[in-house]
Amino acid sequence: MKSSAWLDQIGGRLSDQLRFLLEADRLKGVIRLNHIADGSRRENTAEHSWHLALFAMVLQDYAVAPVDIWRVVQMLVLHDLVEIEAGDTPLHLTLTDHGQAAREQAAADILFGMLPADQGEAFRAIWEEFEAAESADARFAKACDRLQPILLNHVVGGGTWGVRPDFNIDMEKQLTRRIEHGSPTLWAAAEVVFADAVACGWLKPAPAPAAEG
Amino acid sequence: MKSSAWLDQIGGRLSDQLRFLLEADRLKGVIRLNHIADGSRRENTAEHSWHLALFAMVLQDYAVAPVDIWRVVQMLVLHDLVEIEAGDTPLHLTLTDHGQAAREQAAADILFGMLPADQGEAFRAIWEEFEAAESADARFAKACDRLQPILLNHVVGGGTWGVRPDFNIDMEKQLTRRIEHGSPTLWAAAEVVFADAVACGWLKPAPAPAAEG
Repeated sequence: MKSSAWLDQIGGRLSDQLRFLLEADRLKGVIRLNHIADGSRRENTAEHSWHLALFAMVLQDYAVAPVDIWRVVQMLVLHDLVEIEAGDTPLHLTLTDHGQAAREQAAADILFGMLPADQGEAFRAIWEEFEAAESADARFAKACDRLQPILLNHVVGGGTWGVRPDFNIDMEKQLTRRIEHGSPTLWAAAEVVFADAVACGWLKPAPAPAAEG
Repeated sequence: MKSSAWLDQIGGRLSDQLRFLLEADRLKGVIRLNHIADGSRRENTAEHSWHLALFAMVLQDYAVAPVDIWRVVQMLVLHDLVEIEAGDTPLHLTLTDHGQAAREQAAADILFGMLPADQGEAFRAIWEEFEAAESADARFAKACDRLQPILLNHVVGGGTWGVRPDFNIDMEKQLTRRIEHGSPTLWAAAEVVFADAVACGWLKPAPAPAAEG
């Protein structure tokens, strides 16, 4: 932005809201580990968020409990905004990256703080509910967020499943099992994808149990 | 996709829905004329659609008539899916590209036809309502769709305003005036942006009237 005099001229709530919407544009430059379906490049978080909104709209009938689909979609539109400040943390690092939550809370202070207070607080409450992953809405939103990269990894023939040499189907299931909390039907579908990926050699099978003594 | 045997194994509605969601991924590869806010590259239609959903959520109070914001956001998530088959038609070509509507109807047949019939028909009705631009919901959705590229053109110092050498503020206002039908407040803001862009030399002023004889 060369100057913000035009924003000052607009003034008031709308000025703050437009500044926020321009800042949010930076999500298009946050690059995720997985690729898009044609394999040509890695996915950015803005287009990922759009895809998840569509996932929720299409798959809503498979939620484990009745959901308010409008709340689910709001969660998915907002859920990764904090990555503008905090960056993307790939799923397989979330178990060991203990700074992630603090970075994302600080990012939420900055980003949602750009909006008029009432709106910023409402958006932040939706994002916090998603993060907590306890309500039926949040559990279904999380299920969509976990399922989408599984389909993309499969369609490109491995994707992030090959990033760590020791990574196998048991580890993948551990990272994505929360799909089951949001939708047992979608978890069953994910298990079909995992089995096919193992059969195709794109995901390592479970390690053999230690031989008996 | 190497094989769709896994989709056959899942079967039923869910199989068709997952196939549709993977096809929809192609929207990430449809490139628009305008750039993203940091000027580094052109915007794709998937991330544009995400940005518009956020615009609608943030700016809903400025709609000219009360809107069902959930319907507005559904329109914006779905509104450009047809570009997967029909491609993006830049706004300044829409007045002369008489094949666009037919291409997009054919694309809608293909894409929404991939879904279970009830769901495909529901989504198509939402998209048709957006295209007709008559309901309050559609008019506000269209206003967001027109406003966002104006802000992006301004922030990169001209953008698509410089594509045609004769393009000027009067022509831009003609192309975007439907913002006013969805939100007079947002149209007033757009006029501030246009005036600033002219002052900065990023958008040509209105041509001088012919001298009197």
